[in-house]
Amino acid sequence: MSSRVQNIRGMRDHLPSAMILRQHIVATLVSVFERYGFEPLQTPVIEYAETLDGKIGDDEKLIYRFEDHGGRKVALRYDQTVPLARVVAQYQGQLLFPWRRYAIGQSYRGERPGRGRYRELWQADVDIVGSSSPVADAEIIALLTDSLVALGFTGFTTLLSHRQLLGGIARVSGLDDAAAGNVYRAIDKLDKIGVDGVRAELLAGGVAHDAVERILALISLRGAADDVLAELAQRLSGDERALAAVNNLQAIISHVRAMGVPEQQFTIAPSLARGLSYYTGSVFETVVHNPPMGSLLGGGRYDELIGLFAGRPIPTVGLAFGIERLHDVMEELGLGPQARTVAVALMTIFSPEMAPASLALAHELRAAGLAIEVALDPGEKLGKQLQYADRRGMPYALVLGPDELAHGEVVVKDLRTGDQRRLARSVVADALRRM
Amino acid sequence: MSSRVQNIRGMRDHLPSAMILRQHIVATLVSVFERYGFEPLQTPVIEYAETLDGKIGDDEKLIYRFEDHGGRKVALRYDQTVPLARVVAQYQGQLLFPWRRYAIGQSYRGERPGRGRYRELWQADVDIVGSSSPVADAEIIALLTDSLVALGFTGFTTLLSHRQLLGGIARVSGLDDAAAGNVYRAIDKLDKIGVDGVRAELLAGGVAHDAVERILALISLRGAADDVLAELAQRLSGDERALAAVNNLQAIISHVRAMGVPEQQFTIAPSLARGLSYYTGSVFETVVHNPPMGSLLGGGRYDELIGLFAGRPIPTVGLAFGIERLHDVMEELGLGPQARTVAVALMTIFSPEMAPASLALAHELRAAGLAIEVALDPGEKLGKQLQYADRRGMPYALVLGPDELAHGEVVVKDLRTGDQRRLARSVVADALRRM
Repeated sequence: MSSRVQNIRGMRDHLPSAMILRQHIVATLVSVFERYGFEPLQTPVIEYAETLDGKIGDDEKLIYRFEDHGGRKVALRYDQTVPLARVVAQYQGQLLFPWRRYAIGQSYRGERPGRGRYRELWQADVDIVGSSSPVADAEIIALLTDSLVALGFTGFTTLLSHRQLLGGIARVSGLDDAAAGNVYRAIDKLDKIGVDGVRAELLAGGVAHDAVERILALISLRGAADDVLAELAQRLSGDERALAAVNNLQAIISHVRAMGVPEQQFTIAPSLARGLSYYTGSVFETVVHNPPMGSLLGGGRYDELIGLFAGRPIPTVGLAFGIERLHDVMEELGLGPQARTVAVALMTIFSPEMAPASLALAHELRAAGLAIEVALDPGEKLGKQLQYADRRGMPYALVLGPDELAHGEVVVKDLRTGDQRRLARSVVADALRRM
Repeated sequence: MSSRVQNIRGMRDHLPSAMILRQHIVATLVSVFERYGFEPLQTPVIEYAETLDGKIGDDEKLIYRFEDHGGRKVALRYDQTVPLARVVAQYQGQLLFPWRRYAIGQSYRGERPGRGRYRELWQADVDIVGSSSPVADAEIIALLTDSLVALGFTGFTTLLSHRQLLGGIARVSGLDDAAAGNVYRAIDKLDKIGVDGVRAELLAGGVAHDAVERILALISLRGAADDVLAELAQRLSGDERALAAVNNLQAIISHVRAMGVPEQQFTIAPSLARGLSYYTGSVFETVVHNPPMGSLLGGGRYDELIGLFAGRPIPTVGLAFGIERLHDVMEELGLGPQARTVAVALMTIFSPEMAPASLALAHELRAAGLAIEVALDPGEKLGKQLQYADRRGMPYALVLGPDELAHGEVVVKDLRTGDQRRLARSVVADALRRM
């Protein structure tokens, strides 16, 4: 058999050591999502190609397409937002709005793989479908804050802005809607090219010198959220849409506070553009600054996309946690479980005759909820069994010899220190749980 | 936008009501798998087509194949066994054997969809790689028993046999290895065509009348496992390989007993053939008989397949839980959680002024681990909020009016009975947890 023994680049195998972290990430997110009353949805990876056509802009060329056995033109999903839009239209009679749904799964993008860029990527999406209330926007921000805290992140801040804020900034600086598009694109690069870079790009794009300076002054506003919003309200007082955006942000942050998000974990950042053109209201992005790891995730309100299939606007706010990004960053920061194995102990088999008693003890401990691996070869020397457990990185090994069995005891060996203790069988489960 | 608003047949959307059951199934399986020390593995859905070629026999035509953006010939995985074989070969330097791994994910088969037959199917695979010990076979059977009990199944039995048993039965009946193949195929249909059908098929295949009767007598043996094995040992005494199989089964069931599996949950069934040609040792199949639901899952030992890529035999025993089958059967039997929503209660908003206090209460209860949905529109009438919670099927609603706030109390309304109680705020979390 001359098969190639290799995964495709950009599509990762996750061995157990990595999976222990990934499962911790997913389980933690699900637990927070469910505390907020979000409900799980699962859709197939394969969709009719038509369903995806014309929904995601320039990246459409990255979609994996093929014909199935029945000659249907099908595609692998690119994200979980378009499938959500299809589901909302297809099952609207069965769904009750507002609908909080989460979805965790793979999407596929035919990109050139590179650092942080994968062809198979897992995302955990949360969206509130069918509400334009600022309480919904606030809830998404509170949820992401709780999620990151639960994952062990400490020094992070969510930057918050609004689509109509940048528009207003462009308009009060004397630009029309067409020119405003160039302003968004230039500001979107602020992190990469700095204020001077944005200035150069705006000037090169034909924006007048004083307009450029007014724009830069507005997007550079920093400080306490209320102060920044008050300042923006004053400077944008001539632009009704921008003022509505400021009021919307004011409402959102008051709800965010009521939901217990500490002041240092959110801020107003008028420069926040967020690339995706489908956002229509609030936009946000969470940045890890301690240690500095850059942007972790983002989201916002998009009131048009979800209603595309249903034929009417359906206001929606949400975000996607990129599991690949969380995985990579948490690995780098050493966050998450440090265990190298699922099993807390190896149940050794002292001798072939002791096999039944040892398997019975393993059964007893498993029934008590402990993760116990058993040695599989009753004829193997005890030393080799202990060596295997140690090489696997298991914290403990259990030994049950004839003498222990006769006295109702078990030897618990700490494989990191080499210490061993003989304990009454009845307390072993509790002892392992405590250790 | 004229997109088709439809999923592809045979690839299901799972709305929250179904997902609550599916997540319960997966979480229950994972918890049992991990108690046995099995470790998670995740591989991509897409593999090089070569990796799948020539591995799965006639069903190869069901594989979804296409070319990716780089012109590579790729395929969607058909099962999780071939990817496991690839992983074992690719990472053999990093893996320590015996290796217990589980994998939960989708596979794809271009079948004609029908009752119980899906094009996207989820499976939960467990395999012990790199051990030929009967303790490993026993552990898989103990694990599947614990898993089904944890899922709420009661009346089920695991039928156990061995590949060399049927071979021995054919040989002592005077047939050569080539004729034995026809015997397996005929016996494999026993459930569908009955003893008379098998008899007719064997006779039509040219097997002599007395050989047919000897075969039928052997495969019809029933009774206590030890008795059946003793009887088989006697009748197959001339065939060394069959006797080794009987001894192997004897060892497996003694370990199965030591691991706490009750006698009524396993039996020796010499007629068990299991279609898959890659089994080399023990084979087993679990049947739900109360109420009669037929076969639920099966597995066995296959010592050749996993080593195909590595170029040497790697003894392996395992099984796959079909999540689709478990889902369909549990739904029919009414097993699993009966909750219709993730949230235990809706936090209503009594009036716009009460929004901050209500959101703060929701935050407090969520921090205590409860799943609370909040009403999103502070201006909506309380009656409509309660109606929404009731239509969603939520068990409770919480009301916090100015009077309750002033007295440090909360109204808890039972939406099924209409009863409502005013409780001290400090006891609400505990009260909801108990209800």
